[in-house]
Amino acid sequence: MTVHLKDIAAYTGVSIKTVSNVINGNNARVSPATRAMVLEAIEKLHYQPNIAARQLRKAQVGVLAYAIPDIRNPYFTEIGDIMTRVAEEYKYTLLLDYTYGPRDPEPDGKIRYIDYAYGSFEKELSVIKGLRPHLIDGVILDPQALTVDDIKLEEVKGPLVLLGERVFGAPFDHVLIDNVQAAYQATRHLLELGKRRIAVIGAQETQSQAPSLRLKGYVRALQEVNREIDESLMISGGYWHRADGANAMRYLLSLDNPPDAVFCFNDLMALGALSVINANGLRIPEDIAVMGFDNVEEGQFSYPTLSTISPSKEEISRLAISLLIGRIKGTRTQEPECIQVPFELCIRSSTVRNPAGMQINIS
Amino acid sequence: MTVHLKDIAAYTGVSIKTVSNVINGNNARVSPATRAMVLEAIEKLHYQPNIAARQLRKAQVGVLAYAIPDIRNPYFTEIGDIMTRVAEEYKYTLLLDYTYGPRDPEPDGKIRYIDYAYGSFEKELSVIKGLRPHLIDGVILDPQALTVDDIKLEEVKGPLVLLGERVFGAPFDHVLIDNVQAAYQATRHLLELGKRRIAVIGAQETQSQAPSLRLKGYVRALQEVNREIDESLMISGGYWHRADGANAMRYLLSLDNPPDAVFCFNDLMALGALSVINANGLRIPEDIAVMGFDNVEEGQFSYPTLSTISPSKEEISRLAISLLIGRIKGTRTQEPECIQVPFELCIRSSTVRNPAGMQINIS
Repeated sequence: MTVHLKDIAAYTGVSIKTVSNVINGNNARVSPATRAMVLEAIEKLHYQPNIAARQLRKAQVGVLAYAIPDIRNPYFTEIGDIMTRVAEEYKYTLLLDYTYGPRDPEPDGKIRYIDYAYGSFEKELSVIKGLRPHLIDGVILDPQALTVDDIKLEEVKGPLVLLGERVFGAPFDHVLIDNVQAAYQATRHLLELGKRRIAVIGAQETQSQAPSLRLKGYVRALQEVNREIDESLMISGGYWHRADGANAMRYLLSLDNPPDAVFCFNDLMALGALSVINANGLRIPEDIAVMGFDNVEEGQFSYPTLSTISPSKEEISRLAISLLIGRIKGTRTQEPECIQVPFELCIRSSTVRNPAGMQINIS
Repeated sequence: MTVHLKDIAAYTGVSIKTVSNVINGNNARVSPATRAMVLEAIEKLHYQPNIAARQLRKAQVGVLAYAIPDIRNPYFTEIGDIMTRVAEEYKYTLLLDYTYGPRDPEPDGKIRYIDYAYGSFEKELSVIKGLRPHLIDGVILDPQALTVDDIKLEEVKGPLVLLGERVFGAPFDHVLIDNVQAAYQATRHLLELGKRRIAVIGAQETQSQAPSLRLKGYVRALQEVNREIDESLMISGGYWHRADGANAMRYLLSLDNPPDAVFCFNDLMALGALSVINANGLRIPEDIAVMGFDNVEEGQFSYPTLSTISPSKEEISRLAISLLIGRIKGTRTQEPECIQVPFELCIRSSTVRNPAGMQINIS
């Protein structure tokens, strides 16, 4: 026979509301003596809370979601991998809710250079508005399509932590790296190698601010040494996938005066660029140096290995999960914060032959 | 004011049970006239079914789960990407439930060659036993740790479709490719190139049968041409990640008589092997040809591009989702089937210089 709240109430002589308060830990409203009596009855009658019924009352279910914008980009799956392990340390299950990602190339096989933000507006909106409010205790979102106006406190169901460069100033905890500073360091590194024509791949008008922040860092580094800003070397990166980097690199190599270095705004595009430079028989880094951004595992095994900006994925993941759980449990009550985590400049063979493990720490 | 089932019942004069039957589409028990009357009342009173309450009654919630064994292996995320889009065509949301994946290297940075199956037994079990029975209508599982004895009809909560090479003979629909035939074709290709010492990376005793099935195909191809089977060329692949392929390749290059070809049981290991061969200044494919398995996107951009077995991921994903939804909706009622989908042998530059788009279709 199933034991219900009302059976506990009848057995103890208190109201159902009081039993519910004890079960849900609302102890402020219950005297210690009553609480002890109810807990004893729960044990004696073998009461098992009905999980789905508890969900109805918005009790915690031990499930978090990471709204992952693009599972074909290993930057996001590496973050998801670490978050899953960190959530587990806290005894939570993390589900991955894939909010779209770029579409495949058009039927003719081409990828269009369009003003494209991966991440679907509708899917992201359904995540924060609690499409599944009873399933999930809290959400980590790296928005690609929503604006700050879409992420209003009164519209978001339940705790939310933001990642990335899209939304600034929303009333939620936010974890990211200093993108301007990171892109500045990447560009400075290429300048210090004596490179004179540094192209960028991934410069485009998108809803995410990642391209514009990284472009700002690039421009700052060039201006600092009075280098001319050449807009013909700023190339769009489509979906920021390997094929986009390869297409952009083919275009750059077709120029009368091709670049001697290329800074790709993510590693996938850089890996696509490497493949085209290799196929054209040019030497990396002597003829063209290549710099990425993200430090995905693949760049440690590419030919040559890929120099890149390495955001601390461990710290991003750990912080995002712990902030979210703090909000869920009510142990974190302060005003939302925007927290920057460190990054590193990883120097490998695509910019320096025989780099011998150079790594520059920048906090 | 919220409208409940009982309000509809009072308004129409039928029982709550009848209203519920209409809402849940159990029309066999309701006369057409009653049904029309109830539907009219639902519209008039603006009744909105409570989703969580419907979950309590185990109504369908429109959510599927893909229990993904390793999100750091792009084979699985490429499948997850396609499945998400296919599920969406059917108006279902697919959540990714990451059932573990290999652990990171040990603290000393080494990856151990152990009898390791990725996928955690406990996590996979919790998925099929319906840890979250009210959240999810059905599950697609590529088991890495469970055995056929763990996947019994009476223990599995709700519809389930199996993928992969781990479990055979369980009473559920199952989608896979012919692994023996695929590995046979891969090995034959290397033999036809005149390669005489063909090593394999990924031969190991694991709970998954992928290694043993692929080894069987390799052995069959060698025996067919009366080639000696040299067990010293069968190397374990640890977690089947890039670092494992690299480690195994370093060992093979250290042999007095190194191989002239290597067949890696997945692409990630092959990509790791490429990086080591490149770093040693050997020519691919002349000195050593490299063959992978999975056709992940990365292999189209590696140096050289990677020859591989390409399972039809589109067909695997599409079939798995449609079989699962057929079971959920009750439109598929026949005995469970084990369905093999086609694969292709993709010949690229890691086995043939200038392959000019050779592709051999094998069904």
